[in-house]
Amino acid sequence: RYGQREDEHQVGAATGLAYTQFGGDTLSIEVSLAKGTGKLTLTGKLGDVMKESAQAALSYVRAKADELELDADFYEKYDIHIHVPEGATPKDGPSAGITIATALVSAFTNRPVRKEVGMTGEITLRGRVLPIGGLKEKSLSAHRAGLTTILIPQENEKDLEDIPESIRDDLTFITVSHLDEVLEHALLKE
Amino acid sequence: RYGQREDEHQVGAATGLAYTQFGGDTLSIEVSLAKGTGKLTLTGKLGDVMKESAQAALSYVRAKADELELDADFYEKYDIHIHVPEGATPKDGPSAGITIATALVSAFTNRPVRKEVGMTGEITLRGRVLPIGGLKEKSLSAHRAGLTTILIPQENEKDLEDIPESIRDDLTFITVSHLDEVLEHALLKE
Amino acid sequence: RYGQREDEHQVGAATGLAYTQFGGDTLSIEVSLAKGTGKLTLTGKLGDVMKESAQAALSYVRAKADELELDADFYEKYDIHIHVPEGATPKDGPSAGITIATALVSAFTNRPVRKEVGMTGEITLRGRVLPIGGLKEKSLSAHRAGLTTILIPQENEKDLEDIPESIRDDLTFITVSHLDEVLEHALLKE
Amino acid sequence: RYGQREDEHQVGAATGLAYTQFGGDTLSIEVSLAKGTGKLTLTGKLGDVMKESAQAALSYVRAKADELELDADFYEKYDIHIHVPEGATPKDGPSAGITIATALVSAFTNRPVRKEVGMTGEITLRGRVLPIGGLKEKSLSAHRAGLTTILIPQENEKDLEDIPESIRDDLTFITVSHLDEVLEHALLKE
Amino acid sequence: RYGQREDEHQVGAATGLAYTQFGGDTLSIEVSLAKGTGKLTLTGKLGDVMKESAQAALSYVRAKADELELDADFYEKYDIHIHVPEGATPKDGPSAGITIATALVSAFTNRPVRKEVGMTGEITLRGRVLPIGGLKEKSLSAHRAGLTTILIPQENEKDLEDIPESIRDDLTFITVSHLDEVLEHALLKE
Amino acid sequence: RYGQREDEHQVGAATGLAYTQFGGDTLSIEVSLAKGTGKLTLTGKLGDVMKESAQAALSYVRAKADELELDADFYEKYDIHIHVPEGATPKDGPSAGITIATALVSAFTNRPVRKEVGMTGEITLRGRVLPIGGLKEKSLSAHRAGLTTILIPQENEKDLEDIPESIRDDLTFITVSHLDEVLEHALLKE
Ligand SMILES: [Ca+2]
Ligand SMILES: [Ca+2]
Ligand SMILES: [Ca+2]
Ligand SMILES: [Ca+2]
Ligand SMILES: [Ca+2]
Ligand SMILES: [Ca+2]
Ligand SMILES: [Ca+2]
Ligand SMILES: [Ca+2]
Ligand SMILES: [Ca+2]
Ligand SMILES: [Ca+2]
Ligand SMILES: [Ca+2]
Ligand SMILES: [Ca+2]
Repeated sequence: RYGQREDEHQVGAATGLAYTQFGGDTLSIEVSLAKGTGKLTLTGKLGDVMKESAQAALSYVRAKADELELDADFYEKYDIHIHVPEGATPKDGPSAGITIATALVSAFTNRPVRKEVGMTGEITLRGRVLPIGGLKEKSLSAHRAGLTTILIPQENEKDLEDIPESIRDDLTFITVSHLDEVLEHALLKE
Repeated sequence: RYGQREDEHQVGAATGLAYTQFGGDTLSIEVSLAKGTGKLTLTGKLGDVMKESAQAALSYVRAKADELELDADFYEKYDIHIHVPEGATPKDGPSAGITIATALVSAFTNRPVRKEVGMTGEITLRGRVLPIGGLKEKSLSAHRAGLTTILIPQENEKDLEDIPESIRDDLTFITVSHLDEVLEHALLKE
Repeated sequence: RYGQREDEHQVGAATGLAYTQFGGDTLSIEVSLAKGTGKLTLTGKLGDVMKESAQAALSYVRAKADELELDADFYEKYDIHIHVPEGATPKDGPSAGITIATALVSAFTNRPVRKEVGMTGEITLRGRVLPIGGLKEKSLSAHRAGLTTILIPQENEKDLEDIPESIRDDLTFITVSHLDEVLEHALLKE
Repeated sequence: RYGQREDEHQVGAATGLAYTQFGGDTLSIEVSLAKGTGKLTLTGKLGDVMKESAQAALSYVRAKADELELDADFYEKYDIHIHVPEGATPKDGPSAGITIATALVSAFTNRPVRKEVGMTGEITLRGRVLPIGGLKEKSLSAHRAGLTTILIPQENEKDLEDIPESIRDDLTFITVSHLDEVLEHALLKE
Repeated sequence: RYGQREDEHQVGAATGLAYTQFGGDTLSIEVSLAKGTGKLTLTGKLGDVMKESAQAALSYVRAKADELELDADFYEKYDIHIHVPEGATPKDGPSAGITIATALVSAFTNRPVRKEVGMTGEITLRGRVLPIGGLKEKSLSAHRAGLTTILIPQENEKDLEDIPESIRDDLTFITVSHLDEVLEHALLKE
Repeated sequence: RYGQREDEHQVGAATGLAYTQFGGDTLSIEVSLAKGTGKLTLTGKLGDVMKESAQAALSYVRAKADELELDADFYEKYDIHIHVPEGATPKDGPSAGITIATALVSAFTNRPVRKEVGMTGEITLRGRVLPIGGLKEKSLSAHRAGLTTILIPQENEKDLEDIPESIRDDLTFITVSHLDEVLEHALLKE
């Protein structure tokens, strides 16, 4: 079952691009907040690397609470659940890092994620975007899902030439090296 | 031992449909609330995917506390136990997601679950209903158990044609794409 | 070493019936309460299914605190230890569920368990009693231990005919479908 | 390295009898209390059954705090460490149960354990003493260590005949069926 | 993908040198602080030895809070996340110890780490710097990354002769035996 | 890399003697205290027996807080980290027990450990010193490291004859049976 782009802009959900042994696919990252005490739950049959990636994304958001205009106590007021649907399918790897960060920022700020945007890239604690693998397969799946704007790591710019021209013509690729750029392109103003 | 539909409408229990290597069967999902501090217990020899599914169901309910007219502090006032009877039988998979969510909402709102309703579908953090496998076998077991209304994921509508007509005639299938629809069909007004 | 029935009615201990690869045996379930904060300890080389069964039994008692006339805060005032003696012998399965529930209620209410009563049955979160296996072997061991009243799940009534008549004549079998019935037959008035 | 009896009566330490593949040996059970919050630490390369046995011993003492004239809050005022020296030697089994209980009561009441007493027996949550194996080998090791009074489970009385008469003449065996009897024979008045 | 030196001096990030089966590489150690309660998170597919090394580095900083002019309560006011990017690459060993300590001190004091400095060395709880392996390969990777000053353990001075002269001429090696020296050479005054 | 004796008397660090498959070596035990809440961290690739040994050492110190003239609340005011450097080398066994206890007492009392003293011996919860193996190899490593006073368990006195006379002449062996004696010989008055 291949992913499809969202019908509407979503708060607390962003679309990533995955690359598995079966090819590429889109991936919804969902974030849910509930009144709580700062507990983090990670589900969706995630491997250790992907779980650590989610922790890095969350730590970045927490450390940047001021800049993101989040209430200083926001973290301890909510329990956070990050889930990746299709719960029976194993997922792993660091390349959903910026997608998780985007979904988190969307959930905490209530700013919707643009429905036409997909993205892929490892995130670091400083918000840097590191390169990923499988850009060609990921682009095909983004195209098939109806996405039109794809955010990719700056260091993957060189891999764009491997993507079939018919696909490349339909998609707008934006290269990013920091999460600030990701958020700028992925989030609506409100 | 095949499941039978409930004799009466139940608060805090809903009927799911399972698909195992031995065929289909119905599955009771029981939810128990006790004065507590928000601790979650999951029992019934559940696999990791099913446990994560229960966590997603609970997070959805918690995030929607307002809409569901639950007291804002409800979560921290109770310990929640979700159990699936026949404790020696291993169970797994995400397809009991909407059944768990329904049993939770029933327990928290005191609204009974209709005794004639069975259901199957993965739930996401946004309350979406994702498709499942084994619809034919699940339908046979629902029929055998005496259920008459079956809630299935919208995306499984195409699989209805695989169900023997004699069974299909006895059952009312309702396709759903969001938990709101599930609750509307599964819960009594009170 | 085969179990023997108790010499006196016991508070906080009930007699179950086990069925292992070596045949049937009786099983003491002991419950100890100490001033505490609601911590649960399970010992006696119990398998996961039996541990989950004990959790279900406890959750039932906690959820029914009012009906059982237990102080609303009883749970958080005590640490609870459930132990099954002969600590080197592995035990598993859900069939001690109603025995554990009975021992818990006895400990919390101070009502003694009748020394002549043995019992077997899985418990659900709603207090329902589900059928078990090995009724014949369990009955032999109950007889050998000197028990005279045996509580069995309603659904196992059909298995009574497998029990040798000489045994059946000495024992009173009572079929039960809910824990309320179990407690009625197993507990003294005080 | 074979154990020797203590040179003096000890507070917070009791002598058990172990039976391993290499024969019998004595075993010191040490209990240490420090200002704390009720944390339990178990060390000495103990197997799971022996750890559960220690938990059962502690729960018995806690449940009987009143009878033992312990301050009602004693448990939450101390951290408890139970250690079995010769930390590289694996130990397991339930037969040190009454020894652990005795060392705990000694530590909490400040009553010394008689230096000439060794003991063996499983303990239950109700303080009952259950039979053990290897009585012959254990008796030889007790004799070699210079112990003179040996407390054994009532149900092991029948095994006394297997002990060589020369050993039996030097030792006083006392059969016990409840921890009350153990404490009466093992502890000094103060 | 080989590491490159930082474009600017960084607060909360330091550059280490790793030695793997594939040769040497540079390694960014990132530290993120968020309002919290003293929780430590370690990510980046780190092996147990590297995790313990991070704990030692943190304990050294905490024990020296006074000397480092850190607020006495600093530890309990923050949650600390230590991450090593390229999250899919396993990393292990103790040789990043002084790099982790440097990144921690930088994060807590807000003093930037010089962008031209790389370092390698095990740290002890007393701040001592212990020798490491693979100095030659690490030096090559430092050179390739554009670093110019390399801090190495005093005890590795003898290994400098194995480094090709062309590399040695471009790099300034500073031998250190205590973290004080590391911080002096690695941190800007502010 | 063979250990060398300390250049100066150390607070919070003591020198033990290890015996591995590669022969004997000295071992630094480091203890670090930081403002905290009584959390214990054990690092240095320690096996389970060595970790339990450290817990026994700590429990002894805590139980003897009065005698050691430690502030009654000392334990809950600090987080304690015990580390054994050379973090990539696995270490195990109970024979560092008295060394760990000495380093702990030194850290808590601020009394330095004599730089010329090495030691080996298992510790019990009562402060007793139990015999160890590999005394010959340990003595050779102590000699090589420049230590001059070696504390050994009383029960190992008989093994002194196995040590080459040339080594024995250079070292002063002191037999001890209780930690009191260890501290008396190892700690400076302040
Ligand atoms: Ca998919
Ligand atoms: Ca760009
Ligand atoms: Ca069934
Ligand atoms: Ca529909
Ligand atoms: Ca038995
Ligand atoms: Ca009946
Ligand atoms: Ca021994
Ligand atoms: Ca007797
Ligand atoms: Ca790299
Ligand atoms: Ca130097
Ligand atoms: Ca060494
Ligand atoms: Ca001596």
